[in-house]
Amino acid sequence: MKKLDELPECPVATTVSLIGSKWKLLILRNLIQRPWRFNELKKDLEGISQKVLTDSLRSMEADGLITRTVYPEVPIRVEYALSPLGESIQPIFKSLEVWGNNYKETLM
Amino acid sequence: MKKLDELPECPVATTVSLIGSKWKLLILRNLIQRPWRFNELKKDLEGISQKVLTDSLRSMEADGLITRTVYPEVPIRVEYALSPLGESIQPIFKSLEVWGNNYKETLM
Repeated sequence: MKKLDELPECPVATTVSLIGSKWKLLILRNLIQRPWRFNELKKDLEGISQKVLTDSLRSMEADGLITRTVYPEVPIRVEYALSPLGESIQPIFKSLEVWGNNYKETLM
Repeated sequence: MKKLDELPECPVATTVSLIGSKWKLLILRNLIQRPWRFNELKKDLEGISQKVLTDSLRSMEADGLITRTVYPEVPIRVEYALSPLGESIQPIFKSLEVWGNNYKETLM
């Protein structure tokens, strides 16, 4: 995890620096539901490249937001899930959901 | 503004498609405080390029989230502000702020 003095002073900018990209947000939206495997995520997130998915997962793992669990099966199964700290993002996604629905209603 | 059928079905993905980028989020964080001029934003948002700032503002104007007001002074003054629809994003930024503070507390 980063050290406190590596993060922006502004709390909004801190959150944006940790999860503020299209793909991180969509990955987290999925992980809120349940653990996902890499290839499942890749298939669901249309248009994401292997590199961006790998980098986004590694970065959020390093920041303590998600866990990576390797199950010693054949073939090996690797699952990504929210960490307890990651679970605390749920209110953000509730607000994104409410606003998205509200925006769509203004177009009806 | 986009038509309803141009937006993703998922409301979270809708919000992400409209404001889910580092710079759009940081611009909106500023506009929640008060109207800002282009050069003020450029100066405050360290590292943003002229093109990304212009594109982000145009895109959010086209999506009905911000207004662009030209004041016929010398030199001309142009101000960007949240539209009434843009004002409705405030709960999102409250949740980003709360989570950013919470994350920082875990590092203390």
